[in-house]
This record gives sequence, structure tokens and C-alpha cells, in this order.
Amino acid sequence: MEMTEGKIKWVFFLFSFSMFTFCLGWWLHTCESLCSKECFLGSPDNSFTTAQDFQFNTHDTIPAATSGATEDSSDSVSPATDPFNSTLPTIFMITPTYARATQKADLTRLCQTLMHVRNLHWIIIEDSDSETPLVTRFLKRCRVKSSQLNRKTSSKLQPPKVSAKGHKNRGAEQRNVGLDWLRENYKPGDVTGVVYFGDDDNTYDIQLFEEMRYTNKVSIWPVGLAGGLKAEGPICENGRVKKWHVGWSPGRKFPVDMAAFAVNLDIILTNSKARLNPFGPGGHLEPEFLSAITTVPELEAKADDCTKVYVWHTQTGRPSLRYEDKIPTLIETKK
Amino acid sequence: MEMTEGKIKWVFFLFSFSMFTFCLGWWLHTCESLCSKECFLGSPDNSFTTAQDFQFNTHDTIPAATSGATEDSSDSVSPATDPFNSTLPTIFMITPTYARATQKADLTRLCQTLMHVRNLHWIIIEDSDSETPLVTRFLKRCRVKSSQLNRKTSSKLQPPKVSAKGHKNRGAEQRNVGLDWLRENYKPGDVTGVVYFGDDDNTYDIQLFEEMRYTNKVSIWPVGLAGGLKAEGPICENGRVKKWHVGWSPGRKFPVDMAAFAVNLDIILTNSKARLNPFGPGGHLEPEFLSAITTVPELEAKADDCTKVYVWHTQTGRPSLRYEDKIPTLIETKK
Repeated sequence: MEMTEGKIKWVFFLFSFSMFTFCLGWWLHTCESLCSKECFLGSPDNSFTTAQDFQFNTHDTIPAATSGATEDSSDSVSPATDPFNSTLPTIFMITPTYARATQKADLTRLCQTLMHVRNLHWIIIEDSDSETPLVTRFLKRCRVKSSQLNRKTSSKLQPPKVSAKGHKNRGAEQRNVGLDWLRENYKPGDVTGVVYFGDDDNTYDIQLFEEMRYTNKVSIWPVGLAGGLKAEGPICENGRVKKWHVGWSPGRKFPVDMAAFAVNLDIILTNSKARLNPFGPGGHLEPEFLSAITTVPELEAKADDCTKVYVWHTQTGRPSLRYEDKIPTLIETKK
Repeated sequence: MEMTEGKIKWVFFLFSFSMFTFCLGWWLHTCESLCSKECFLGSPDNSFTTAQDFQFNTHDTIPAATSGATEDSSDSVSPATDPFNSTLPTIFMITPTYARATQKADLTRLCQTLMHVRNLHWIIIEDSDSETPLVTRFLKRCRVKSSQLNRKTSSKLQPPKVSAKGHKNRGAEQRNVGLDWLRENYKPGDVTGVVYFGDDDNTYDIQLFEEMRYTNKVSIWPVGLAGGLKAEGPICENGRVKKWHVGWSPGRKFPVDMAAFAVNLDIILTNSKARLNPFGPGGHLEPEFLSAITTVPELEAKADDCTKVYVWHTQTGRPSLRYEDKIPTLIETKK
């Protein structure tokens, strides 16, 4: 074949286009690890909504709650084994969750972490039209006081199947349901407490909860593996924030991760503007929320003047389930 | 431009080739989540060997061991808070680990899980020439009885920088160091116990440890999110293995994950062939190891006749640290 100039151009174009598409394929996967969890975890293609879909799924492992668990009400509360101590502030941890292959694993290890924390009330809000049996059974067996709520993400925020790029604020509506639940169930002064937004696949050192327990207004600390840094967060001096160590979008007023702060319960109960805006620009949930309730000089520095990391923005890799449904489900042969 | 038959062929070829390269880019990332952890986690490009490299890294969070921790010896043992109960078999958990951005987060949540388990001795073997200060400090503060060992993976098994495909048996040499340590420190009959290979980023329901505690020879159970399945493992009847639910390489004699079995300590102490072969074919570490010490009919089925999942082969996503070292390290301005 004679290589005319036209053909050489074709070959060059072919090569360039191939490189572009290769990079595109690679990048679509790579960006998953940097961008915030809210923006990419939509449309769980491996999701299963009931435990029955998962052959091995049912278990009764985490020691069962001691008594009185009610599962039927959508705001049922399952009790912890250790009774609450009325002299210790309660930590209300608000955790959005959604059905996916790793959900039970993530919830299991988080439960086992929270079992070490005294006076913690875990408010779980599922992204679903109703409570899923998997989460209901899980919470019944998790020895942490909890409430199970649910709110399906509105269709405007549902990611398209192909691209999840526009889907910035996953979990915002669910966190608002948690805040509303607190406002419906408590009045200012009812109970001393603090509110924390804690996702189900982050990693928490149990010391974090003792750091946040005594928060007068809003407390703050660094978060590991967030914002493209080993640790992102405030730089503090004598208990106050002086600067920010931040790479992504440093112009934000409060350039922090959702896991970086806790708020006194009474602030939530008395300030109706303390809500997340699901329709705001991606990455600005936290600054907008904090701007409505506090100022930078007011922030209370925790974690040894913001020098220590007690929470990491980890992400559980999405597993391949390439053989699922492709081999005979032999497990069904078992009685 | 006139579309001759030749040009149409070119366009068709261009399209096909582009699709192929796109799929290749995608697949190179996707395969990471299916293939066993040993085969892909080499060459941690975000690794840091000392805690000093990580500005926020030092902390004293997990309540410190109560007394007597010795950190200087390479086989130092740090004590658990709860004294061991001599009537309860000891679980020796062998965990290979290596320096990477997520190491401390993974170890932290695993420590907090193991804190719930009685009579557990955690044997951690680092893939390094010497003990790293990060792990030494971590273990001193983790309230679990532990021993810190180390063994640098031999150069024959080091992955090349570009492709980690040939690196199948990461952790095998480290696990052998753990087995050798047991043989050096115990004689058959010294102590009732069981040996378990538990990686640092798996997820463990604490019930798993009660399942394995009473193992006469070798016990077995399913593993969640392993081998391309929601759960991979044995199908059992009346306490014995009847079949296997497996997708990848079903011809193996024991087609199971490393997290699927536990072995009575005396089997390890009396059988010098109970070792892992770092140079064997990938994915065959477990079958070769088990073949040397037991047979399928002998296996003891746990987890309610292998119907329940108490351990998941989760993987912590590698975080992007794209801004690390690219912005002023403001944290250094703090005293």
C-alpha cells in the first residue's frame, strides 16, 4: 500500500483519536477517587434492595439489641446496650446511606466503631422510597442506639446513567431529613447534644467523638485523605482558626469536608436556616451551611489545635461482581 | 469530501480501534477491583514511610495500652486492656501491611473492630526493611495485644512500576514470617489457639472470630465480595462442604479467598509444610496451603453451615493526592 500524504494524515488522526479515547476511559475511572463522594456514587449498578437478593446476606452477628427495638415505625429507635448517661452530651450522628454491594460491609464496620462511643444516637437516612429490609435488620442487630429514616433523592438530582458529573450533592436531602427529625423530636434545652454529619464509608478514630462532644457552637478539625491532600483542614492557634490548608477551591469561606465539623444541637434546633442546599453548586454544601450559622473567628478548634487526624475521607472500592448471575446459583441447592 | 468505499473502511476501522482503546483504558482500572489484592496493590506511589512525612499524622487517640508495652524489640508484644482468659482459645491473626496513604485509616478501623474480640493476638508484619515508626506508634496506642514484625518482599516479587500484573502473591512472605514467629514462640500443646490470615482492609463482623475460635483442624466459611461474586465460598450440609460457589478458576481444589479459613494452632506448629509459596501461580496460594494440611471432607463448616457472611473482601480506594506538595505547606507555620 502506497503511503500518500492523505493516508499519513489518516494514520496520524487515527492514532491521536485512539489516545484520546484511551485517556478518556482511564480518566472516567480515575476521577472517581478525587471528586467528593457525593458527586460520583450515584446509580449503583450493583445495588440490591433487599437482603433476599444477596444469597448469603442474612445474619444475626452483631450482638442483638437488649430490648425494646421496634422496627415498624419509620422513626423507630433501637436501643444501645449501655444506657445513656444524662451528664454526658449526646452525639447525634447523621448518616446518609444507599443500596449498593458494599453497603452492609460499610455499615457493619461503622457500627462496630460506634459501639465504642458512649451516648451516641445514630440517625441513618436511606436514599429510598421506603425502609429497606437490609438496613432494618442490620440496625436491629447493631448495638448502637439508632433511628432509621428514608428519603428518595428527588428526580432532579438523580444522576443520568452514563455520566454522574452533574450529581454534586448526593446525601444533602437525606441530611436535611435528619435535621428535620431532630427538630421534630427535641426542643431547645431538652437535651445537651451535638450534631455530626458522618458518611458510612469514612473512617473514624473513636477519639473523634470525644473531641466533638463538648461543642459550644461549631467545632472544627482536619480530615485525612480529603480534597486531594493527605489531610485538608484548618490551621489553628490557641483554639482558633488562622488559615486553611486546602488545595481544591481555596476561595471558599469554609473550605472543608462534611466530616470536618460538629454543631451544637441547640444551633440546629433554633436556626431554621441550618439546612443543606441540594441544588447548590457542587463542593459548596459545607461553606453554605456553615455560613448560615457561624463565622470563621467563632469556630472552636479541636484535635490538639487542628494538628491531628481523627477522621479519614476513605472510599470503599466498588467491587467487580463479574461472575454474579453467570454461574449456577448453587447455594440454592442448600435447604 | 466524497465517501469512497476505501474511506468508509477507514472510518469503520477508526471507530473500532477507538472503541477498543477506550475499553482497554476502562478495563485497566476495572480489573483492579476484581483481581486479588495481592496482584495489584504493589508500588504504592503515595506511600510515606514515616509519620513525619504526613503533617497531621501523629495522634494519641486509640486509648493507650495499659502497661508494659515494649517497642524496641522487633517481636515486641503490646498488651490488650482485657487480660487473656486461659479457658478461651486464642486467635492469632496474621496481617501483612505496607506503607500507603490509607494505611493508618485501615489499621485504625481494624484495631477498633479487634478491640471487641477477646483473647486475640494480632501479628502484624510490615513489608519493609525495618519497623516503621507509624506502625510502632499505632500499635502502642491500639488496645489489642499485638506483635510487630517486618519482612521486605524479596526483589523477585517486587512489581515493576508500570505493570503490577505479574505480582500475584503480595503478602505471602510476610504471612510466612508470622507462621515462623508462632513456631519460634510456641510448642504444640502450649496454648489452645487458632491461626487466621486477615488482611488490613477487609471488613470483619466480630461474630467471625467467635465462629473460628473453636476449630479442631481447619474451619471454613464464605467471603463476601470475593472472586467476582457477592459471596464466594463453600456450600455446606450438616457441617461439611458439599460444593463450591465460585466463578473464577473453579477447578482449584480449595477455591477460596485467604479470609475464608482458620487453622488450629497445633497444625501450624507440627506441620512445617504449612507455608505459603510466594513464587507459585497467582490465585493458588490458598489451595496449595490447604492441600498441605487438610482435605475437603475434613473441613469444618462454620457461619451457620456456610450460609452467612461475616467477612468481606473490601478494598479501600486509593485516594487522589493531587494537591499534595503543590500548595504551600501552611501547616508548618504552626508551632
